[in-house]
Amino acid sequence: MLDELKIVRQLGAVFPGGSDVLTGIGDDCAAVRAPANPLLVAADQVIERIHFTPETPPEKAGAKLLLRNVSDIAAMGGTPRWAILTLAVNGRDEKYIMDFCRGVAEAGSRYGVTVIGGDTASLPSAGVAATLTILGEAPSGGAITRDGARVGDYLYVTGKIGNSFLSGRHLDIEPRLKEGQYLAQRHLASAMLDVSDGLLLDAARLAAASHVALQIEPEKVPLFPGARAPEAWSEGEDYELIFTSPEKLETLGKTLVPICCWGRCVAGDGELLDKTGKPFQSERLGYEH
Amino acid sequence: MLDELKIVRQLGAVFPGGSDVLTGIGDDCAAVRAPANPLLVAADQVIERIHFTPETPPEKAGAKLLLRNVSDIAAMGGTPRWAILTLAVNGRDEKYIMDFCRGVAEAGSRYGVTVIGGDTASLPSAGVAATLTILGEAPSGGAITRDGARVGDYLYVTGKIGNSFLSGRHLDIEPRLKEGQYLAQRHLASAMLDVSDGLLLDAARLAAASHVALQIEPEKVPLFPGARAPEAWSEGEDYELIFTSPEKLETLGKTLVPICCWGRCVAGDGELLDKTGKPFQSERLGYEH
Repeated sequence: MLDELKIVRQLGAVFPGGSDVLTGIGDDCAAVRAPANPLLVAADQVIERIHFTPETPPEKAGAKLLLRNVSDIAAMGGTPRWAILTLAVNGRDEKYIMDFCRGVAEAGSRYGVTVIGGDTASLPSAGVAATLTILGEAPSGGAITRDGARVGDYLYVTGKIGNSFLSGRHLDIEPRLKEGQYLAQRHLASAMLDVSDGLLLDAARLAAASHVALQIEPEKVPLFPGARAPEAWSEGEDYELIFTSPEKLETLGKTLVPICCWGRCVAGDGELLDKTGKPFQSERLGYEH
Repeated sequence: MLDELKIVRQLGAVFPGGSDVLTGIGDDCAAVRAPANPLLVAADQVIERIHFTPETPPEKAGAKLLLRNVSDIAAMGGTPRWAILTLAVNGRDEKYIMDFCRGVAEAGSRYGVTVIGGDTASLPSAGVAATLTILGEAPSGGAITRDGARVGDYLYVTGKIGNSFLSGRHLDIEPRLKEGQYLAQRHLASAMLDVSDGLLLDAARLAAASHVALQIEPEKVPLFPGARAPEAWSEGEDYELIFTSPEKLETLGKTLVPICCWGRCVAGDGELLDKTGKPFQSERLGYEH
């Protein structure tokens, strides 16, 4: 049995709060000053043997959980602010939990995220399951959703993809927060999402939500060392941003990650097409966790 | 493997959104209009074999998860608004998940809570683990925290306690939302929390947070049929409100649940004392889940 009160006291030091936090860890609810713009909310889970291995250091697993959620805020063009963490564990000691929480806190501090509350509970069998809910603020012009792509828009992706899991990069996600904010502030993106489950699958989701088809050339997308096409197009865990824009863009500026134009929106309803307009042939589109 | 896209589509119908929801289920984040008052946030988990049995109907388990969280908002005197649900399952089919979600949605609709997003994932071994993060709005005068009790304040509890688990009442929680709001609007409560882990343990938490001692007479607290003292004082899962007030109160009004005065704040730092001022003798204070 975990000593939840003791853990909560220790977490107060790991998660020190912030000036916008009116009531932090240790009460029935946290209370924060509500932002002026709309509130963004997302949640993700990491589960041992599904999203990380028993050998993964708990700091890394905690950091991954936080960073996956920051990537969701990035995909709306928003700014992350606060997080709520719940942990269900069995067969792990307090040190494991504290190390996991330190990983969350350290990664959060890099992106301006304060952990303001949560819960710990027991699992009936050995393992770790953690959920993080992230709260953020939408950009002034409104969040960039995945349903705004129009026929004629260009299709882009940030950075490089592939080989995320085997290289261990899936634990050291670099959420494309500045890139998402850049696109939002300049009203450049008509639709956007992040690549969690595979380049092709997430592109198909954007197409379906926007009721367009995408004529794609994924062979144009740069790959990480060790990655191979076509596998890299469906491996997932890339956490790059897929977005569409009516503008033909070459770059988001010198300080941001390079982008690649790899397709165009055409008439349709969620289909992926090759450059000749035929259905895109792929053994699989992505990976559902 | 669960078909997450299919589930998300079905959930769109189970969780229909609301007028304050700008972007609902199915995007990277949900977006809602931020409230005028501070934002309240809490999270709770329900885990099969810990918080409910494999025989518990999934609708009931889902409802319990939502209602536990509403009770946390009630304990601050606030108004619940939105929820984020994550589910990790193994060995359960889509019907189980949809029934669980329907339980969350139905209980939420009774208390004005809209589910706006979430995540589903797989567990490595058979079971169900669910987390719900609730968002709410603080009362205009500020949230009622657990650290505001002062020497001389009276100690109260709403309703009756005991026999929650064996009677099945722990699945049909009635969060004391109106009672919490009544106390907040009239600035009557100096400190408040809900009884999740046991009357004595939660009272001791209030005392510790407020840096007072509590001189208590738990034998005055009404018990549910089938409950026995002293066991009922530490069983937990009551979801009544413990609060302190400088006022001597008899009732919160005819339409609200009766209250009982069962102690008083005296000088100290978290101690529970009997009516003679000696340390309160108890085999255990409560139950940590």
